[in-house]
Amino acid sequence: MKLFLIGTGLIGGSMSKDIRNLIDEVQIHGVDKNQINIKHAKDIGLIDNIDSLKNLNSADRVILSVPVSESLKILPFVLDNLNKDALVWDVGSTKFSLCKSVENHSKRDQFLATHPIAGNEFSGPMASKENLFNGKIQILCQTNKTRPDLLEWAESIFNLMGMKIRYMNPEEHDKKMAIVSHLSHISSFMLGKTVMESEKNDQNILDFAGSGFESTVRLAKSSPEMWSSIFKDNRKNILEILNAYIENLKQFRFKIENENYSDLKSQMIKTNKLKKILDTIKPKN
Amino acid sequence: MKLFLIGTGLIGGSMSKDIRNLIDEVQIHGVDKNQINIKHAKDIGLIDNIDSLKNLNSADRVILSVPVSESLKILPFVLDNLNKDALVWDVGSTKFSLCKSVENHSKRDQFLATHPIAGNEFSGPMASKENLFNGKIQILCQTNKTRPDLLEWAESIFNLMGMKIRYMNPEEHDKKMAIVSHLSHISSFMLGKTVMESEKNDQNILDFAGSGFESTVRLAKSSPEMWSSIFKDNRKNILEILNAYIENLKQFRFKIENENYSDLKSQMIKTNKLKKILDTIKPKN
Repeated sequence: MKLFLIGTGLIGGSMSKDIRNLIDEVQIHGVDKNQINIKHAKDIGLIDNIDSLKNLNSADRVILSVPVSESLKILPFVLDNLNKDALVWDVGSTKFSLCKSVENHSKRDQFLATHPIAGNEFSGPMASKENLFNGKIQILCQTNKTRPDLLEWAESIFNLMGMKIRYMNPEEHDKKMAIVSHLSHISSFMLGKTVMESEKNDQNILDFAGSGFESTVRLAKSSPEMWSSIFKDNRKNILEILNAYIENLKQFRFKIENENYSDLKSQMIKTNKLKKILDTIKPKN
Repeated sequence: MKLFLIGTGLIGGSMSKDIRNLIDEVQIHGVDKNQINIKHAKDIGLIDNIDSLKNLNSADRVILSVPVSESLKILPFVLDNLNKDALVWDVGSTKFSLCKSVENHSKRDQFLATHPIAGNEFSGPMASKENLFNGKIQILCQTNKTRPDLLEWAESIFNLMGMKIRYMNPEEHDKKMAIVSHLSHISSFMLGKTVMESEKNDQNILDFAGSGFESTVRLAKSSPEMWSSIFKDNRKNILEILNAYIENLKQFRFKIENENYSDLKSQMIKTNKLKKILDTIKPKN
């Protein structure tokens, strides 16, 4: 089987490693406009060959693992060039615009929209690892638009990776992700910015940061290229939840300003409920 | 040696466990107005006896490990009743008001203001553990106001616990902590609140949360009693940094609204610098 990996980063790279372990005689051809990454990918044996999009017609399977703004440009071209029994799936963090972009494509049924919830703050081929997806959620969108035999193959490979498959429509997906993922990244990036601006001598102040700060600011290490693309693509949903977040922060500030500490406390007690909810969810790390 | 532990929670409890391991024949007397916690503390052997503040005059060492609003009430009383060679130290997250509250106390030199940077989202005696402080920062304030022999004893015990001692004045301490700790807690509490409010069916949406959300919202599990007390005590510094945070979030929102993605990206690239800074700090967990 010939697998094309477009984008040799954390998610696509990790998925390729699992596929190599699960399927006999898989040949992995890498495509990446980042010359450093593609060279690393070859050096560490993540891919067998450095290839280009013009040879896509020889692919059996294609993973599209690039920022969503790139996927929007590349996916129609990939479908145009795909042979009749090949499948392409993307792994991006937003699904609505990408599904929309190929809804009338004659080969729409050779595409599967997926979102494995397995990203972290690391990126690039060196961040990829085997077994990343074990126990993680895999969201599939518009599965009725994918050819049944290709969908079945994909579901079975995701199951073999240990993923828990969930089905969702693209609108619902993007709205949920704005809330449980994209907002966290903004809160973390802005926390990092605020703290760094507050002291010119960053090193000194961060010396006194405990594990709480490190945990809260972890996502501020994420890839700016990938995240500016997500913020653009999911703009409407993100603005809605970001407004709610800013409003909550302003209300909290108002309570501190007005020394309404009993309200602050009861609000935190309510939010503590998260502890119970999160504890009932199986660990995802 | 008789050690009084006032407040049988995470920090004081963990410190008592280390002291028991480091010093021969230590007797630990617990005081806690929370009847459930003090019973737990006795049951798990964290303390040897349940005692009360009225017997403080028999103490050699006293750890004051209660919310800062409680410390403000209790510390003068503790000093009043301390025998002449005893030492009391607090372990609270704010230092200015507490130091101020006893600045004219005749036994001021038997008090040491400390802040071990070792808290996490857990609380209560069951959360206490040995060796929690190994490799962590211990901030000492106004050490020149503590009797040299008592200070020397305290520094040596903190060193034996593996702590890295730093010296700071209370104002500087409270300002720095608002930035690197208290703000993170607010951002996390409000993130938890926003996400929980956004869907009535919490369980369902949190099912799709990845490790990023869990990391960012971790501190929303923290103790409301302790944190409302900190927000009150460090109100001025917290309002200042919270204003800066809200302002940064509003600017970020403005950039998304106006589709200024290149600015968003370059801002995130700048914030990525944190990665390098945090990586140079020795892991604190």
